Amino acid sequence: MKQLVKTLYRETEKYLDQEVELSGWVRKIRSQKNFGFIELNDGSFFKGVQIVFDTNLPNFDEISRLSISSSIIVKGIVVKSQGAGQNFEIQAKEIEIFQKADLDYPLQNKRHSFEFLRTIAHLRPRTNTFSAVFRVRSVLAYAIHKFFQENGFVYTHTPIITGSDCEGAGEMFRVTTLDLNDVPKTEEGKVDVTKDFFGKETNLTVSGQLNGETYCSAFRNIYTFGPTFRAEQSNTSRHAAEFWMIEPEIAFADLEGNMELAEAMVKYIIKYVMDECLEEMEFFNQFIEKGLFDKLNNVLNNDFGRVTYTEAIDILVNSGKKFDYPVEWGIDLQSEHERFLSEEYFKRPVFVTDYPKEIKAFYMKLNKDGKTVRAMDLLAPGIGEIIGGSQREDNIDVLEERMAEAGLSADDYGFYLDLRRFGSFPHSGYGLGFERMIMYVTGITNIRDVIPFPRTPNNAEF
Amino acid sequence: MKQLVKTLYRETEKYLDQEVELSGWVRKIRSQKNFGFIELNDGSFFKGVQIVFDTNLPNFDEISRLSISSSIIVKGIVVKSQGAGQNFEIQAKEIEIFQKADLDYPLQNKRHSFEFLRTIAHLRPRTNTFSAVFRVRSVLAYAIHKFFQENGFVYTHTPIITGSDCEGAGEMFRVTTLDLNDVPKTEEGKVDVTKDFFGKETNLTVSGQLNGETYCSAFRNIYTFGPTFRAEQSNTSRHAAEFWMIEPEIAFADLEGNMELAEAMVKYIIKYVMDECLEEMEFFNQFIEKGLFDKLNNVLNNDFGRVTYTEAIDILVNSGKKFDYPVEWGIDLQSEHERFLSEEYFKRPVFVTDYPKEIKAFYMKLNKDGKTVRAMDLLAPGIGEIIGGSQREDNIDVLEERMAEAGLSADDYGFYLDLRRFGSFPHSGYGLGFERMIMYVTGITNIRDVIPFPRTPNNAEF
Repeated sequence: MKQLVKTLYRETEKYLDQEVELSGWVRKIRSQKNFGFIELNDGSFFKGVQIVFDTNLPNFDEISRLSISSSIIVKGIVVKSQGAGQNFEIQAKEIEIFQKADLDYPLQNKRHSFEFLRTIAHLRPRTNTFSAVFRVRSVLAYAIHKFFQENGFVYTHTPIITGSDCEGAGEMFRVTTLDLNDVPKTEEGKVDVTKDFFGKETNLTVSGQLNGETYCSAFRNIYTFGPTFRAEQSNTSRHAAEFWMIEPEIAFADLEGNMELAEAMVKYIIKYVMDECLEEMEFFNQFIEKGLFDKLNNVLNNDFGRVTYTEAIDILVNSGKKFDYPVEWGIDLQSEHERFLSEEYFKRPVFVTDYPKEIKAFYMKLNKDGKTVRAMDLLAPGIGEIIGGSQREDNIDVLEERMAEAGLSADDYGFYLDLRRFGSFPHSGYGLGFERMIMYVTGITNIRDVIPFPRTPNNAEF
Repeated sequence: MKQLVKTLYRETEKYLDQEVELSGWVRKIRSQKNFGFIELNDGSFFKGVQIVFDTNLPNFDEISRLSISSSIIVKGIVVKSQGAGQNFEIQAKEIEIFQKADLDYPLQNKRHSFEFLRTIAHLRPRTNTFSAVFRVRSVLAYAIHKFFQENGFVYTHTPIITGSDCEGAGEMFRVTTLDLNDVPKTEEGKVDVTKDFFGKETNLTVSGQLNGETYCSAFRNIYTFGPTFRAEQSNTSRHAAEFWMIEPEIAFADLEGNMELAEAMVKYIIKYVMDECLEEMEFFNQFIEKGLFDKLNNVLNNDFGRVTYTEAIDILVNSGKKFDYPVEWGIDLQSEHERFLSEEYFKRPVFVTDYPKEIKAFYMKLNKDGKTVRAMDLLAPGIGEIIGGSQREDNIDVLEERMAEAGLSADDYGFYLDLRRFGSFPHSGYGLGFERMIMYVTGITNIRDVIPFPRTPNNAEF
């Protein structure tokens, strides 16, 4: 006999005039002398349901005075609603109070700033906005798994604790069991890492790519989906120290195949969320980013643009537009350049490919020109770079040369080089920042508001 | 025109007498004067496909001498096979060599010990056993997501880096950006944690439960699925420093609901893997654990047993069996006791509930007897404890008392106590060690062999 609010919304006709039992929390309450209304949210659905109660209840007075967020169990009849904007309501026959919420509950019925809500990250998913954000986060994660699994990809758990700095890039968090009050030292006065848990220096991963490539050589198409870490002192709305990343890797595939996969994935997961999170997405479209649906439909309904870096530089130079950062071949594209390309020139997501090797990672496949590599960045209107990837260097001689240039030791990357010795194969992959995709899909502009308990400099609360 | 081996197996009829293009790696090769056979594995499928080539190929001599693991691209016709044990093979029209594998490739066609294969963790997924293990790992992970998502659960990413020790249990890894060669100290000579990245001491999470409960209070039914860490110096076949855990949490649910959920989940994911990984599971049943199918079917086809701890102690005492650890009320059940209960007495998975509070965590709901808590452990034949969970204490007075007994400061757990102040609700949850479930489903007995790149004391390779 116990029902969920979601079920009542999805199958209203079936339950009309039936008795149901609901349980949940009081979101709103108003009462008059002989009757009252409770908006009950049971967590199963974005919307709550209206409970009508009256003096037939023996505990009417107590119910009338219930505090916001009190937990109750309601038995009642589903009836057609008189009120506007809702199809049904519950005529209460019995309301049991499980706990009366303390009166200092911080989420009373008024608007709260996102900044304030971050300080009560344990309670904010009870608000409309964050209920919508974190349900979308869940559905988006599932869409990603579904897309890759249905396409035969193997989900690979690459290690979180790592003995190597994957890309030689980014500041890392050290992982240790040494007593920081009394760090053991070698005779030379250096940290004695042999005393540490793993017998060597270890850090939190910044990318699973290199490990992922090893599994690509066995399973052809794989993807990772796990947490990654950057110890950067960036206090911006787009950086977090801990975030989740998706990194597919595909064998016998060049950059074209990589772009096709990225485009198919982006379209699939956006469509999935729009289909599965109707109520949440309408909320975002109405209250968080006006025009969100137009933006997302524009992504769904157009082929993504494709342009080489060299062409992109020409477009920028010939645009007649003044940029803060001057444009010339060889520069790293800045946000203003990326936005011009996707928002003003292409007016849709666009892949920029074949960047100068100097501004890209050592593992990207060198083009025949000797100057550029088979990199790709996907730039999307409204957010800029959302995916970065490349075809990987599969020629061991070139790879070793590039590693030497980057100052990386072949010893540390023996396992990576092995992939080029024992059946090297053309392969490609990319990384998608999960939080950035959530921001894109919801219109939320601060990464702290799409991570349940965000970690940023000087902040690891909860 | 490019095909996958998996597609040819699944839709053989459709491709018979058609030309296809396959790419992959040479697993086996044998050749005679005028013809030869290659077993090609392309990563898409557990099994490889037989390529028949002959002197019609202009590069016949070169192909004949290909080394194991060389990467090739094959065009040919799908024909009915003459050989036993296979339905089709490929008559090669063209074989392009992408790379000839170096001759020191360690996976030549002989048996290798699991110990040796751990030293080449980047190559071992290319073997039959580990190809099967890690595809099952992927499919099992997906089954878990599918089960919870289809039942309306919200996937919650609880933090990996944490400022609090969740259960007050287990040794933790410290996460820091301090320079260990020169740790900043306070005037009192202690580590100056205000100089650290988060401005406080932080560690890697041992459980997402407490954070998960906060999202349970908003979304009713949630689950986590992420990495967790234990810095224990345990060099056993069942312990790893880094492993993945699933922790569902359900609102307005008591321990009965918790057990129902756990039983439904276990059955669902086992059945899913048996259906989706036919070839791999047959391999395990034949070569890794004889009787695996019987064991798993026994789980699928029986209701799980249910017994209280107190009853279980009676069963053990009255069994007439000699145990190494003597049995009396109050002891923590040892592996021998758990195995007797599930393997000899119940002969199926069994929930043991209502343990003495002294041997369980502070957050478990105290029973009216004041002595036991609403804990549950699921014991399974052949492996012992596979799930541990409880109904949570929802009474704030009792919870505060239990925390005080456990020596935990209410200040550190303010957010957790808030859940009992602002709409407390009956709720329950459990933890499933993902690797333990993989071991159970595959018959693999060492946890190092179900984690792509395992982390154990003195080992963080790759």
